[in-house]
Amino acid sequence: MSGELEHLAARLREFVRVRDWERFHTPKNLAMALAGEAGELVAEFQWLTAEESRNLDEDALRRVRAELGDVTLYLVRLADALGVDLAEAANAKLDDSERRYDPETYRGSARKAPPLTS
Amino acid sequence: MSGELEHLAARLREFVRVRDWERFHTPKNLAMALAGEAGELVAEFQWLTAEESRNLDEDALRRVRAELGDVTLYLVRLADALGVDLAEAANAKLDDSERRYDPETYRGSARKAPPLTS
Amino acid sequence: MSGELEHLAARLREFVRVRDWERFHTPKNLAMALAGEAGELVAEFQWLTAEESRNLDEDALRRVRAELGDVTLYLVRLADALGVDLAEAANAKLDDSERRYDPETYRGSARKAPPLTS
Amino acid sequence: MSGELEHLAARLREFVRVRDWERFHTPKNLAMALAGEAGELVAEFQWLTAEESRNLDEDALRRVRAELGDVTLYLVRLADALGVDLAEAANAKLDDSERRYDPETYRGSARKAPPLTS
Repeated sequence: MSGELEHLAARLREFVRVRDWERFHTPKNLAMALAGEAGELVAEFQWLTAEESRNLDEDALRRVRAELGDVTLYLVRLADALGVDLAEAANAKLDDSERRYDPETYRGSARKAPPLTS
Repeated sequence: MSGELEHLAARLREFVRVRDWERFHTPKNLAMALAGEAGELVAEFQWLTAEESRNLDEDALRRVRAELGDVTLYLVRLADALGVDLAEAANAKLDDSERRYDPETYRGSARKAPPLTS
Repeated sequence: MSGELEHLAARLREFVRVRDWERFHTPKNLAMALAGEAGELVAEFQWLTAEESRNLDEDALRRVRAELGDVTLYLVRLADALGVDLAEAANAKLDDSERRYDPETYRGSARKAPPLTS
Repeated sequence: MSGELEHLAARLREFVRVRDWERFHTPKNLAMALAGEAGELVAEFQWLTAEESRNLDEDALRRVRAELGDVTLYLVRLADALGVDLAEAANAKLDDSERRYDPETYRGSARKAPPLTS
């Protein structure tokens, strides 16, 4: 990691160190915390229509932004605990998806549209 | 966003554009995809002890790295669709946590240890 | 628990006992497994419109039914490990929701519509 | 469904009907709500050791019981919206697992221990 992700990872390392919380931050526990925050994020959208989700009001956007921040913190912390470079891992998965889903075959078809990644 | 996150966001924007998948990538749907990938990530750790989760074998680490990549892709894509700067959102939440959990009060106590963020 | 839920709980207890898997089935691990299965379930719906989700084709319904079965198994297993009666717990939460959301106030309004439970 | 699950499904159907919330309760939205509640459940366990998760204190057990109730409500509601019999679906998956993981081969081995279901 480098740049903004490494900056976050370093801040988190120090945050955890001065509170002596390393014992709680096992990869297992951090994966759980990430799943919990992803659950809070999905809950923000659960009763919205597709269109409403594209046009969040100010309050909803503020809450979603906070949840996105939480997910990012645990994701960066987990990757750091495992020595994984998040940007590299994401770029590698996107390379795969570009190979797998060629634009001609998969263009615009709801039936063909696969996950972005799988 | 800037740097590595903006680079990923731009790659994803183009990936989606050339496949004409914008219609699928509503914030609602992307939040679901993120929750799904977070579920795959947590499943990698479900039967491991705390200690095993700190010492993943090569195969497990490769799978976890791929899941971390997937989560990152959907997180970046969702933030981009909403115009949220992920690094800013994460730093803001970490600022909050630093204020809320002062090191003296919360040091090392399992009973007191709160979530990193809430 | 009684009836169909107790029947499932008893089958699972025996399933785990003859395989000597009790050590893996801590409440913590079972909660993770449940979250993982909930992630697989939500992933089945992630690219569908609201309308499509109401009209699953045969293949999608078969997959969703299997995921619903998985979620149920881990939910029953977790409740059993903790000595919680699921039907009682669910009825108690529904009692709360009936009190909290009186029909006149909350009828049909997207803006007012709260979660079913919270 | 019959018995206690059908009783819950019927209560929920009426709860939703008198509030005119059917429009919100698409299978897609209900799957999201279930994932959100599963996230709250996993969060209850995230900082606990395996041993602590087996010995919840009264407050934690009360919170977990409420989350188990919420997960059950959305699970029953989703299954009902899709016409799926949860007990049948769960028993069918457990039948599969009994065939797939014969006790001799899979007994007690951490390395071999598969998910209960997959």
